[in-house]
Amino acid sequence: MSTLFLRTLREDPADAELPGHKLLVRAGYIRRAAPGVYSWLPLGLRVLRNVEAIVREEMDAMGAQELSFPALLPREPYEATNRWTEYGPNLFRLQDRKGVDMLLGPTHEEMFTLTVKDLFSSYKDLPVNLYQIQTKYRDEARPRAGLLRGREFIMKDSYSFDVDDAGLASAYQAHREAYIKIFDRLGFDYVIVHADSGAMGGSASEEFLAISPHGEDTFVRSTTGEYAANVEAVYVPTPAAVDASTVPAAAVHDTPDTPTIETLVASANANHPREDGRAWTAADTLKNVLVMLTHPDGTREPLAVGVPGDREVDAKRLEAQVSPAAPGAFEDKDFAAYPMLAKGYIGPGVLGSDKASGIRYLLDASIGEGSAWVTGADEHGKHVFNLVHGRDFTADGVIHAADIREGDASPDGNGTLTLARGIEMGHIFQLGRKYAEALGLQVLDQNGKLTTVTMGSYGIGVSRAVAAIAEGTLDEIGLCWPREISPADVHLVATGKDQAIFDYADTLVGELESQGLTVLYDDRPKVSPGVKFKDAELVGVPTIVVVGRGLEQGTVEIKDRRTGERREVAVAEAVREVVAEVRPEATA
Amino acid sequence: MSTLFLRTLREDPADAELPGHKLLVRAGYIRRAAPGVYSWLPLGLRVLRNVEAIVREEMDAMGAQELSFPALLPREPYEATNRWTEYGPNLFRLQDRKGVDMLLGPTHEEMFTLTVKDLFSSYKDLPVNLYQIQTKYRDEARPRAGLLRGREFIMKDSYSFDVDDAGLASAYQAHREAYIKIFDRLGFDYVIVHADSGAMGGSASEEFLAISPHGEDTFVRSTTGEYAANVEAVYVPTPAAVDASTVPAAAVHDTPDTPTIETLVASANANHPREDGRAWTAADTLKNVLVMLTHPDGTREPLAVGVPGDREVDAKRLEAQVSPAAPGAFEDKDFAAYPMLAKGYIGPGVLGSDKASGIRYLLDASIGEGSAWVTGADEHGKHVFNLVHGRDFTADGVIHAADIREGDASPDGNGTLTLARGIEMGHIFQLGRKYAEALGLQVLDQNGKLTTVTMGSYGIGVSRAVAAIAEGTLDEIGLCWPREISPADVHLVATGKDQAIFDYADTLVGELESQGLTVLYDDRPKVSPGVKFKDAELVGVPTIVVVGRGLEQGTVEIKDRRTGERREVAVAEAVREVVAEVRPEATA
Repeated sequence: MSTLFLRTLREDPADAELPGHKLLVRAGYIRRAAPGVYSWLPLGLRVLRNVEAIVREEMDAMGAQELSFPALLPREPYEATNRWTEYGPNLFRLQDRKGVDMLLGPTHEEMFTLTVKDLFSSYKDLPVNLYQIQTKYRDEARPRAGLLRGREFIMKDSYSFDVDDAGLASAYQAHREAYIKIFDRLGFDYVIVHADSGAMGGSASEEFLAISPHGEDTFVRSTTGEYAANVEAVYVPTPAAVDASTVPAAAVHDTPDTPTIETLVASANANHPREDGRAWTAADTLKNVLVMLTHPDGTREPLAVGVPGDREVDAKRLEAQVSPAAPGAFEDKDFAAYPMLAKGYIGPGVLGSDKASGIRYLLDASIGEGSAWVTGADEHGKHVFNLVHGRDFTADGVIHAADIREGDASPDGNGTLTLARGIEMGHIFQLGRKYAEALGLQVLDQNGKLTTVTMGSYGIGVSRAVAAIAEGTLDEIGLCWPREISPADVHLVATGKDQAIFDYADTLVGELESQGLTVLYDDRPKVSPGVKFKDAELVGVPTIVVVGRGLEQGTVEIKDRRTGERREVAVAEAVREVVAEVRPEATA
Repeated sequence: MSTLFLRTLREDPADAELPGHKLLVRAGYIRRAAPGVYSWLPLGLRVLRNVEAIVREEMDAMGAQELSFPALLPREPYEATNRWTEYGPNLFRLQDRKGVDMLLGPTHEEMFTLTVKDLFSSYKDLPVNLYQIQTKYRDEARPRAGLLRGREFIMKDSYSFDVDDAGLASAYQAHREAYIKIFDRLGFDYVIVHADSGAMGGSASEEFLAISPHGEDTFVRSTTGEYAANVEAVYVPTPAAVDASTVPAAAVHDTPDTPTIETLVASANANHPREDGRAWTAADTLKNVLVMLTHPDGTREPLAVGVPGDREVDAKRLEAQVSPAAPGAFEDKDFAAYPMLAKGYIGPGVLGSDKASGIRYLLDASIGEGSAWVTGADEHGKHVFNLVHGRDFTADGVIHAADIREGDASPDGNGTLTLARGIEMGHIFQLGRKYAEALGLQVLDQNGKLTTVTMGSYGIGVSRAVAAIAEGTLDEIGLCWPREISPADVHLVATGKDQAIFDYADTLVGELESQGLTVLYDDRPKVSPGVKFKDAELVGVPTIVVVGRGLEQGTVEIKDRRTGERREVAVAEAVREVVAEVRPEATA
C-alpha cells in the first residue's frame, strides 16, 4: 500500500446516493469519468476480473464458446431488426468521417445471428452456444447509483442457436443451471423470477435478482414459495365469467362533484345505495385512465386503460405492456383535442361501446366478464351504475397494468403474494425466431429443407454485479467482499515503530504468497494504526492479519472482517492458520 | 473441432489485401463487422488473450499498476489539452441524449493525468506507473489490412508520472526494458528506432517496429548498426557553412520551357555552362514546392518548402513536420490567389528575400549556408544562377522534408543508411509536462512548493500485434504461430474409419490436457484426412499430432508445423514426446 495507486477518502462523494456506491468510491475502487461512466482503479479492476473469471469458467463449463464482437457497429443489422428505431434515445448513435451511421452496441443479438449465418448452414452444425464478456453502451435517461445503471458497462451476453423448440428449451435450461452456479459462487442473496420479455420479443424469460432494498425492480413471491415474478411479469389470471342476469339494468345517475374515486364512493353510498344493501367500495368502481404513448418512430397515440377504482395503473407494468412505445401523461391539450372525453367522468361508453373517441381501450386483466361497475357516464357530474362488462360494454383488449399488492392472490392459485425489491443481475430468455427471421438465419434440416433457427439470449451484468455485491454485503464500517471476488485473500497490516515488525511482515507476505494467496500489504511506514485499521475495514478484504505489538510475545492477530472476531496465533502457526481461514474447505 | 465455432474457408476474402489478413479470415480467427472493425472468433480471441497475458505479465513485473478507463469520454479534458480539435476527423465524436459532446477515446493521457491529480498530491506519492489494456477508437481515413490499422482496436497504454526529468528518464528506461522482454516473448523480428514525437508533443521517443514488407512505416538503419530511426524521425544534420566568396554574383538567365528539373538541367548545361567546367546536375538546383496546410481548426495556410532538385518532398516526413496541420495539394485556384507565384519558376525571391508572397518558406535541413543554387527567378522562362543561401536569400526556417535514400550518410556520422519497412508495434515516449500543465497536475515538492509532474506515455498495439505476428510468421500453406501465443499447444488430428483411432485419440487428448497442454482436437467423424491436414496447416498450431493409420503398428505421428518435419513415435512414448516438443526447455 506504500506504492499502490490508492487513496481512501473519509468523505462520501457528492454524487453518490447508495451506500455501496459511496464505499466503492471512498475505498478507491472506482471513479466517475462522466455521468454513468466509470473508471476502474486497481482494487476495483481486481474485483471485476474475479467476477469475469467466475462467469467465464461456468460458461466454458456448460460448453459455451467465447468470442468477442466490437462495440462500434454498423447501422444496417439493427435497421433490419428495427432496433435502430426501437431503442429510441437509449441508443448511442454516431456518424463516422464519411457520414456513415454507426452505433455503440447495447446488446449483440444481431451480430451473433449474422456470424452464425456466416459460418453455419446445416442442422448438423447446431446446437451452438456462444458468449462474450464485453463493454456495452446504453444512453440511460437516468444513469443511477454508480455501476448499478451505467451508460458504459460490462456484460456477459450469450446466445443459443437451435433447430427446434426442444433444443431451445434445453439450451435455456443449461444456461439456467450455469447461472445458478455463477450466482451461488458470487456469494449473495438472489431470487429467480419470471420476467417480462419486454422489447426483445420472444416467450419464456426469467430474471436473477439480487435481493436489495436499493433495487430498481419490484418482484413478488408467493407465500408457498412456488411462484416468483418481476412485478412487470405478473399476469393476473382473468376471472371466469360470472352470471350477471341478476344485475339490474345499467342506470345513469347524477353524481355532481365526484371527479375522484373517494368522492364517487361517498356520493354513491349516500344517494344511490346498492340494491343488496352492501356499501359501495372503491373496488366496485371502474377508473379509466388516459395516457399518451410515444412510439419509437415518434408518432403519438392515446390509450385508455380501465382498472378497478381501488387500484392504480402501475407505471412499470404499463411501460412493459406497451413497449417499445413509451407512455406519457395525457395533458390538457390532449383533452382539448378529444372534447368527447369528460375529464373525471370518462366511461366505457365513449371509449368502448360507441367508439366515439376512436381511442384504443384496454381493460385490466382482473376485470372479468359479467362483472358490474360504477363508472363514468361521459358527462360531467354523471356516473353509470351496474354497467356490466360483456353485457353493456366491451373493450379492445386486455392489459396487465393494475398495481400488484402485498396479499394479492398468487397467479398460480396457491397462497398470496409478498413484495420486495431487487437488482437485475441476470436475464435468460427464449428469444425464438424473431432475429433469425429478420436477418435470414436458416439452416438445412434433416430433410434438406431450409428452416429458421430458434435462439435464446442470456445476459449477466458483470460490472453491475460488482456494485450489487458491494451493496448486498457491506456493513456500517465498509465494504465486505465474499471470498471469491475479494480484491485480495488477505489484508495484512503491519503497524508499529519497530523495524522487526516490518521485517517479519515482509517475510509473512512472501510465505502467504508462496501458498498462492494474494495479499494486500499495508506497509506504509508513517501511517497511524488507527488509519490502517480503518482503511482495512473500508476496503473489505475478508481476512485481516495484524502484525504489531503482539510480535514481541510471538503472536500475530487474525481478524474476520465480517464478524469482527479476532484471535491471536503463534508466529510459527501464522501461515497455516491464515491459509485455513482463507481456504477452510481445503483444510477441513 | 466437431463442435468448435469454426469454419475454415478455401477462398480468400474479397476485402483482404495482405497474406496474413487473408489467412486470419480463412482460418476462422476474425471476421469483419464494419470497415476497420473486427469480431474475434474463438481461435482469434485465444491468440489475443495470449498476447494480452504476455503484455500484462511484463507490465506487472516492472511494477506498473493496471486500471481501466472507459472508452466513452467527456469532451472537457480533451478540450483542455486541445486534442478535441487537434485530432480532427480521426476522433469519433458523438452527443448523448442531452446533446452533451462526448468522444470515443483514441488514447488516454487526459484521463490518467486527471486521475493522478485526483489521488496524489505530494512528491512522496511518486513515481507511479499506470497502465490499462483497453479498446480504443480512431476514425482512420484508410482503415487497412484488417487488424493492422483498425478503427476499433485494443491497446496497452501506460503512463509514468515523475517529479523530475531524471525520474522520467528512468521510467522510460524501465518501459524500454519491459518492451524488449514483451517483444522477445511474442517471437518475431523487430527493431527499435528513433521516432518522431508527432502531435503528442514532448521529446525522446522510440518505436518498436515489426520488420515487414507490408509495414506502413519506413525506417532506416546505419550500416554500422548504431543508428536506426523511423524515416519521419531522421534529422539530417545541417552542413557547416561554406565559404561562398568565390561564387560569382547571382545572375538571371532566360531558360525558356524549363518547368521541370530535367529540362532546367539540360537547358543550363546547353546555354549557361558552369564557370568551373563541371556539368550542372539536379543536385545543383533548388526546387520550391508549395503545399496547402489545413490546421485542426479548419484554417488553411500555404507553405513553401525548398529542397535540392534531386530530392522529392517526402509526404510522411512533411506530414510529421507540420503536424497537427495536414498538408494538401496547392491547387490551381491557390495559384490564382497568389499571382506573384510563377508556376514552374518559383524562387526564393518572392518567397524568401522580399517576402512579396507573404508565404512561409522553409528550407530543407540539407541546405547549408553558403551553398549556391540554380533556382526559379519568379518569372516564366527565367531562372537565377549562383544564388547563395545566406548571401542572396534566406528563409523563415528549417524543415526535415526531403526524402531519405539508401546510401545517404547516417545522421550519426558513421556509415550510410539502408531502408526497410516495418509495422509499428510499440511506442515509448518522454511526453514531458504538456498534459500535466494543461490539466494542472502539480504536487508539492520536498520544499513544499508546487511543481508540475513530468510524464511518459507508452503504447503497444495488442490487436495489431496479432496481425503483425501472423504476417511475420506465416508461410505458403497457412498461419504459423510462435508457441507462446498459439491458440493451442497441439493440434491433434484423428483420422480413419476405425473407432479405435478415435477412442485412443480421446484418451491422448485427456492425457495431454492433464499435462497442462491445450489441445485443438480434430475429432470430426466424416471429414477426409486431406481436409483435416489442410485445416491444421491453415490454422497454424506449431505442433501437429496425427492419430491414424500408424495406430495399428502402435505409432502416432508428430509433425512440426513450421519445418514440416515428421516423426513416428510409439504410443507408449506419445505423451512424453509431445510434451518434449511443446516444452523443449522443460525437458532439455
